[in-house]
Parts: sequence; C-alpha cells; structure tokens
Amino acid sequence: MINQLVSKIQKTGAPIVVGLDPMMKFVPEHIQQAAQKEFGATLEGAAEAFWQYNKGIIDAIYDLVPAVKPQVAMYEQLGIPGMIAFKKTVDYCKEKGLVVIGDIKRGDIGSTSEAYAVGHLGKVDVWGKSYYGFDEDFVTVNPYLGSDGVNPFIKVCQEEKKGLFILVKTSNPSSGEFQDRLIDGKPLYEHVGEQVAKWGEQCMGDNYSYIGAVVGATYPEQGKILRKVMPKTFILVPGYGAQGGKGADLVHFFNEDGLGAIINSSRGIIAAYQQEKYASFGAANYADASRAAVLDMKEDIAQALASR
Amino acid sequence: MINQLVSKIQKTGAPIVVGLDPMMKFVPEHIQQAAQKEFGATLEGAAEAFWQYNKGIIDAIYDLVPAVKPQVAMYEQLGIPGMIAFKKTVDYCKEKGLVVIGDIKRGDIGSTSEAYAVGHLGKVDVWGKSYYGFDEDFVTVNPYLGSDGVNPFIKVCQEEKKGLFILVKTSNPSSGEFQDRLIDGKPLYEHVGEQVAKWGEQCMGDNYSYIGAVVGATYPEQGKILRKVMPKTFILVPGYGAQGGKGADLVHFFNEDGLGAIINSSRGIIAAYQQEKYASFGAANYADASRAAVLDMKEDIAQALASR
Repeated sequence: MINQLVSKIQKTGAPIVVGLDPMMKFVPEHIQQAAQKEFGATLEGAAEAFWQYNKGIIDAIYDLVPAVKPQVAMYEQLGIPGMIAFKKTVDYCKEKGLVVIGDIKRGDIGSTSEAYAVGHLGKVDVWGKSYYGFDEDFVTVNPYLGSDGVNPFIKVCQEEKKGLFILVKTSNPSSGEFQDRLIDGKPLYEHVGEQVAKWGEQCMGDNYSYIGAVVGATYPEQGKILRKVMPKTFILVPGYGAQGGKGADLVHFFNEDGLGAIINSSRGIIAAYQQEKYASFGAANYADASRAAVLDMKEDIAQALASR
Repeated sequence: MINQLVSKIQKTGAPIVVGLDPMMKFVPEHIQQAAQKEFGATLEGAAEAFWQYNKGIIDAIYDLVPAVKPQVAMYEQLGIPGMIAFKKTVDYCKEKGLVVIGDIKRGDIGSTSEAYAVGHLGKVDVWGKSYYGFDEDFVTVNPYLGSDGVNPFIKVCQEEKKGLFILVKTSNPSSGEFQDRLIDGKPLYEHVGEQVAKWGEQCMGDNYSYIGAVVGATYPEQGKILRKVMPKTFILVPGYGAQGGKGADLVHFFNEDGLGAIINSSRGIIAAYQQEKYASFGAANYADASRAAVLDMKEDIAQALASR
C-alpha cells in the first residue's frame, strides 16, 4: 500500500491528503435541508448530511489527490448512524481509487490492539468466514503504550499489505507538554521517532516503509530533525492551512527525492467555499471550491519544493 | 458520577469493575450456535453472540459490582454490527444500574477530541435536538497529545457530570518504553500523574475528582508512588488476574479510607468457566461461574486490604 501511495503521489504530483472531517457548520444549507427533510432532526439525518457532503467533495477531487483521511471522531459523535456514514465514506473513496487513511488514533495492548487492527485494516474470522470491519488502507496509531500496542497493528499490516502512521509530534499547541520533555538530552518525540524508524525497518516497501509517522506542519524545525531520524519513514503532516502551517514550512519534511511526506488539509479544502478567497463559488458549488483549493495547495507546495 | 461510583463501591463492598471484553473463544458453544442459526456466519451473527454472552454475565453480576468496563475494540472489530452490540451492552448495563466505563482510549486535539467526548459522554446537537451517541458514564483517555486533547473531554464531563480515567502507567510489559523514561529525574508517567492531579483539581466530587487515572496492577511499586502524587484521583487498575496482578499487589493503590481505586478483571471473570477452578459450572452455567469469580475476587481484595 505504501508503494501504491507513492506511485499515486507521483502520478498526481500532489503530496496531499484531504481530511474528510465533516462538521455541520461546514455543510451547505441545501444538503442539510435535504437530509433533514428525508430523515428529520435525527442522528440519521445528520449522518446523511455528512455523507452527501463528503460525496460531493470526493467526486470533485478524487482525480487530483492520492489519498483522503476521514477523521473517525467526527462520525463517532453521531453514534451508530455516524459510524455507518464513516464506513460509506471509506468504501466510496476506495471505489474512486483513493488511498484511505483512517484517522483513528487508536492504541491499546495485546489482544485489544489486535482487535482494533483487525477492525480497521484486517479481516475478522466469523465461524470460518472472513469479513472486513471498516477496511481502511492506513490508520493512525498512538504510541504511548509502547511496542505491545503497536506490534499487533504491524502484524496485520504485514498480512494485509497495509500501513500505519504513528503519532510522533502532533500539530497542536500543547503537544509539547509530554512530547517535548527531554530524556537523555533528547525530546520524547525524537525517541518515539527512532522507535518508529526501527519498527519501520521490518516493513519496507520499495523505497519507504509502510510504518509512517505523524509530525505536525506547525513544528517545521522538529520536522527537519525527525526527517533525518526517520529517513525511510513516510511522514503524514497535519496542520497545513487552518492550523497555521504554510508551504514554506513543509520543505524539510520531504526527502531529496521530493517524496517522504504527505500533507493533510481538512477544513482548508472541505470548507473552502466559506473562505473569502473562494466565496464566489457559492455554497451550491462548494465542491468546486474544494477542487480549486486543492489546486492552489498543490501549487503552494510545488513552489516551496522548487525554491528550496 | 464519581460520587455515584464511590457510593456504589461502598454499598457493594466491591471496588471491582468487570471488563466486558468479549472474544469468540470465550463465548459458550450454545450461544454461538444460537446466534449462527439466526444470523448465519456473519458480522451480525458474531455481534449477536457477543451481546447474548454479555447479557448473561451482566444478569449474573449486576448486584455484586458497581461498574463494568466494555472494551470498545472488541466490538469495533466486528464493524457496524459490533458497534451496535457495544451500544446495546452500554444501554443494558445502565438499565441495570451499573456505572459504565467505556474503555475507548481515545485522544486527539481540539474539535476532534470534542467530537469523541460528545460521542461517548455528551450530547450532539442535530438541528436543535440533542442526542447521545454512545452515552457511557466514564471513558478512558490517552494523554500523549497534552492538554489540548484532554480539555475538551473535561469540558463535557463538567457539563454532563461524568468522568475520565486518563492513562498514566499501563499494565503491559512494554509500557516502560516511553512511560518509564526519566525526565528531570522522574519517569514520564509521574509527570503525567502530576498533570492528571492538576486537571482533577478543577473537577472535584465530594472526596474524589471525576478525572481519574489508569495505573496497571502489574506495577505495584509505581502504584504506590502514583497514589501519593494523585491523592484525590480515583485509580482504575487493570491487570488483575489474567495479566498477573494479585490482591496483595493492589493495596498500595488504595487510600487509607479504603477507597481511591477500582480493580478491573476481564477474562478472569467473563471466561471464569474456562478456568479449572470454575470448570464444574460447565459452559451452560458460564454466568454463574462469573458470579463465583466476582465473589472470590471481592474476598481476595478484602483480605489484602484487611491485612495491610
């Protein structure tokens, strides 16, 4: 799957992943009204609105980008109907040929981590028959519990030829509270990064490991260091756009081959029509605004990489 | 909710939480067969087997213990049907008067953590109507992302009078890889414990905070230290029984008032009938075996506390 991700990045020229993180305030009025008319003011109605909103965006951008990253929390807040919308979104993106990174940030130990891995990446055995639960291509994983928590995910990735992005240095302001604390003269995130590189060695695709890392765009200096600590690790970079990261901040996350990183933007793309810059599209054409925002982001990153 | 948990512990005399972590190998043949007959070898069939299995156990133990802790991963691995079984289990336990600790180990940032908090503890607004997604009483939270990740959970807890158990020192063998690393002469878990105590100060019930901590029974020495670092924090202690923790290991997790800790056992209770000690119950009476195992565990903890 990492080879597929790399080849799709090369084909599209866009090291970009679109975060499908729906919030009702982003969903255009006409979609909200149609969903409410059909299902009423219910969880089913809200889930339908999310799904129709996603579908419009996916249809508008699937040929431009290699991957999408649905954030499961946004769906999980709607209970069962939300989880159904999550699954519909994952399935539809895969139909459209997109690589799907499930942003689930799960992490537990032993048989529990195994259950998460099976549920999101692998197949569960039911009396001799096999079923996928949610069937993403990659998932994000929290490393706080150590190898016991990560190894079951790695095992399923090896079986299914799928992959992980493990949290190393997150994009939020308070990520330093624990992640930046110095241990033997080096911050915790660097130790985690070293461990990710080690886990990744047993899981190599052609040029990159399918055990990747998450490092926030909002911390470019740390990205520079981690790029060196984890040379064969693909880095998923959240925090571009709405969280304050810019194209120029991103260059150090990439290797000399122009690969090694994939930049996420969520509301900057999916709610583009609400920005002044794309307001002329109007809510009715929100998906076209998203398409324009992807093209602009692609250009911003390409320019930054060209001028480094 | 922390007051309710404390009063239920005092009423039952059992500082015990039963982990409802179903695995098919624990489910008695007759339940598996009935579910398969009704739904075939499908995810729905497996989910039905888990639910019926849980229901038997809940009916047999609800008067003995204050709380249960369903592990969402075990349900999530069955996709949507599994999540439906999770919700059914949560709802049924609440009907029976049990405090429900959702073992979800979620943790993200900002609006994403808020979505998890809303989905599992709070209410989501759908066009002016409010709905609970999964509606547990407490959830477990991963602190790796710092305050940005935890504060949205705290906010929802304050609104809903619910609570958290934040991972501090987990019970697994490799928990030390990151959690034990020394920072300014103290292990990371102690720093996290201090932060949990600080978060908890703003969230006091009568005698304990509703922001609790998770500390594994397999690390009694660390439990002793953390008990002092977090005097007002309720500690959820996994690792008793199957993971190797014994009654005698547990005494240091409790305060002088005999409170402050709640001990989890999962397979030691729910799969008791598979142990030699309870084999005479037989698979047909698996729930009675679970009841006997709860009574034995209660006795083991009471003896350990009496002889300290």
